[in-house]
Amino acid sequence: MQPSLDSLSNILDTDSLLTDLSSLEHYGKDWTNQYTPKPLAIALPKTTEQVASIVKWANEHNVSLVPSGGRTGLSGGAVASNGEVVIALDKMNKILSFVDSTQQVHCQAGVITEQLQQFATDNDLYYPVNFASSGSSQIGGNIATNAGGIKVIRYGLTRDWVMGLKVVTGKGDILELNSGLIKNATGYDLRHLFIGSEGTLGIITEATIKLTRQPTSLTVLLLSIPELSKVEDLLQLFQKEVDLTAFEFFSEEALNKVMSHHNLPRPVETESPYYCLLEFDATSDDILNKALECFETGLEQEIIVDGVMSQSQQQADELWKYREYISETISGRKPYKNDISVTPDKVSDFLNRVNQIVKKEYPSFEVIWFGHIGDGNLHLNILTPEDMDHLEFTKACEQVNPLIFEELKKLGGSISAEHGVGLLKKPYLNFSRSELEIEYMKGIKAAFDPNNIMNPGKLL
Amino acid sequence: MQPSLDSLSNILDTDSLLTDLSSLEHYGKDWTNQYTPKPLAIALPKTTEQVASIVKWANEHNVSLVPSGGRTGLSGGAVASNGEVVIALDKMNKILSFVDSTQQVHCQAGVITEQLQQFATDNDLYYPVNFASSGSSQIGGNIATNAGGIKVIRYGLTRDWVMGLKVVTGKGDILELNSGLIKNATGYDLRHLFIGSEGTLGIITEATIKLTRQPTSLTVLLLSIPELSKVEDLLQLFQKEVDLTAFEFFSEEALNKVMSHHNLPRPVETESPYYCLLEFDATSDDILNKALECFETGLEQEIIVDGVMSQSQQQADELWKYREYISETISGRKPYKNDISVTPDKVSDFLNRVNQIVKKEYPSFEVIWFGHIGDGNLHLNILTPEDMDHLEFTKACEQVNPLIFEELKKLGGSISAEHGVGLLKKPYLNFSRSELEIEYMKGIKAAFDPNNIMNPGKLL
Repeated sequence: MQPSLDSLSNILDTDSLLTDLSSLEHYGKDWTNQYTPKPLAIALPKTTEQVASIVKWANEHNVSLVPSGGRTGLSGGAVASNGEVVIALDKMNKILSFVDSTQQVHCQAGVITEQLQQFATDNDLYYPVNFASSGSSQIGGNIATNAGGIKVIRYGLTRDWVMGLKVVTGKGDILELNSGLIKNATGYDLRHLFIGSEGTLGIITEATIKLTRQPTSLTVLLLSIPELSKVEDLLQLFQKEVDLTAFEFFSEEALNKVMSHHNLPRPVETESPYYCLLEFDATSDDILNKALECFETGLEQEIIVDGVMSQSQQQADELWKYREYISETISGRKPYKNDISVTPDKVSDFLNRVNQIVKKEYPSFEVIWFGHIGDGNLHLNILTPEDMDHLEFTKACEQVNPLIFEELKKLGGSISAEHGVGLLKKPYLNFSRSELEIEYMKGIKAAFDPNNIMNPGKLL
Repeated sequence: MQPSLDSLSNILDTDSLLTDLSSLEHYGKDWTNQYTPKPLAIALPKTTEQVASIVKWANEHNVSLVPSGGRTGLSGGAVASNGEVVIALDKMNKILSFVDSTQQVHCQAGVITEQLQQFATDNDLYYPVNFASSGSSQIGGNIATNAGGIKVIRYGLTRDWVMGLKVVTGKGDILELNSGLIKNATGYDLRHLFIGSEGTLGIITEATIKLTRQPTSLTVLLLSIPELSKVEDLLQLFQKEVDLTAFEFFSEEALNKVMSHHNLPRPVETESPYYCLLEFDATSDDILNKALECFETGLEQEIIVDGVMSQSQQQADELWKYREYISETISGRKPYKNDISVTPDKVSDFLNRVNQIVKKEYPSFEVIWFGHIGDGNLHLNILTPEDMDHLEFTKACEQVNPLIFEELKKLGGSISAEHGVGLLKKPYLNFSRSELEIEYMKGIKAAFDPNNIMNPGKLL
């Protein structure tokens, strides 16, 4: 029996409870795009107190809740397909305060990532967590999934920038966590527990985020790598001398697709099976010279066979295109995506093992590799063959998943580096977390959400 | 009734269970030095499996366990005064492996901080978490208290360097947490839950720690500050231009005591009520020039009234003495210590409020302020008057604590910035954590340690 929504609408402002079909479809899905949205209603609270009231209402009426940010996730974490009430943070989109001396900004969870980045720029500062969906993703969602992206090697994950949280637990309690303190040794850091919890413990409603100094002269190197094993040497060579802000990777196959799709010239003369894109902030000539020395050493030691370095911001942007355009370029071939990680020293070993598996199991499948290799994070994209039904293809890929994840498990890797678990990766969670760990996670979940109201079916 | 220790000794190697009075006294206390040690026995396991067996034994026999590292804590977190079995990690003191390309070192929890720092130096790298007790404190204890220290403004807390943990929970389960992965979005990060948990959820037995590049040319500025409110301006001025590696603070009273105790000259000509010690890594002339510009701007804007800058490593070391010698200098006066923090923008407000409280309540007490002011972390030291009994003095200070902590609560501060809660700060936990938060912490504790075996009476 469906609960009456009248009592819920009383909690909210007028026009803040949506039940029309278009809204249900819009708010019921994320970018995963393979689940059928079917929420009961969409609630658009304006305050933390309203969120707490909704959670209490849901506990009383035994209604499941799905917290909803920009819904740019790729694991179905924000999908509502089972009569849930979606709590969308869209109306909690204000930057509340900013303290110049601490470089901390306090904002509501519905602030768009790009909005925060722009706010930082307007204050001559920088919010360094950046990724493809920054124009739509919300801060609350970023925190709930501990979003990473392209600058992690220098600036870390979202976790590293969260100085405080206001949350509503699955019991409807409002907690203020850490409040911007740098040092606070007073017991379990519940803030860190909520970061990456995918909306299963409660709802993040406000966050205190640290900003930092802007980079001054971002410089890009695009390098040809003769063989995979050299990637580790390259990382080590540069990391000893230069603070890299990015260390990205893609294959010749990926490059070829981008060049032909976007009609771009080959960026480096020498063709090679793999390429690395390195970025650093050339704050002084000294740093620039160190990078150049590393480049020359790399050539001498045959770690790289060719390369170019940007001489201007425009050239840097041009070089980034070869990496950034990959996802969009292959999207027409509806790739089956795996977002996996190992420690950076095991990347080439893992990549070789996966290549062998795919070649053996599906010799006709086209594999496109790219990723944030400085963090050990690889995006494995298997393209749908032109002559194959997509559903059939997805099933085939799902059959190969356990083989890949078994290798990942042997190497101590992660089945989801930065996309989260949600619905899509839940069947594979035990490849990265032991049964014991999962039991303890369930124990924590029970302490924060005893009635299993918060995002049920996701993650655990 | 005391349990038989025979069954416990069977778990351990020969000579690894101590019950002699001298060992009980040695292992039963930490640097807090105000509790009477009275453990039942001291266990010295050599493997994680032995630790797990001890925890299972303790659950079966309902014996409390106290995890024990270097016992350099100042809050009684490692005190065993109630018939507990102390699990000392002294025999698990090996560095197990090191991967050059990831700069990650895997070690046992009993490794001494200085041993890890030396290992890093031997590999041309750097472990940046550093504090007064680094020569005795163990990595496991550092992690259990999320140790901070003097480089937090640049390098963060222990938390920021822990890439993986092996732990034994209060149920005796062995968990491998994160295993060195940079990106791992697979549910609750139990690693972060154990960091700062003060041995109340389980025992850390191994850790994977990230190292970083060594600083090249650490340079120190010692600056005279005309009034407290200028400290925030000074922090902001420098932080916009330079990556500070330290931003320390002390009062003229503190300086005076150090100069007279150690027969040192006044380091800057102009006497002022407060001083700040800034450190940065002058990796290039450009950075050095930026720091000099900030210095000049500071003088022009009357944020500072005088200052000196080190021209060599030796001069830098000399300047550090004025800050580092404070603790030892005043130790003869048995200071009552409070280790508190607010966000850095509220430091001068808070300090003024506390000065007023102490002046009003105890006009004869001598107060020595110093601390890591760039992190908002202040060490408030009230010196025992020469003519006052120490116990009487301690009681008087404890009576003033609630007044100070009430101001701290209003400002959203922490009653323990980096010393942890342990036994000593437990009565005051609710000034920094709400009753609701404490309830959720107890829920987590119950999931990991249902029989309340692990460090009972500490923190919660």
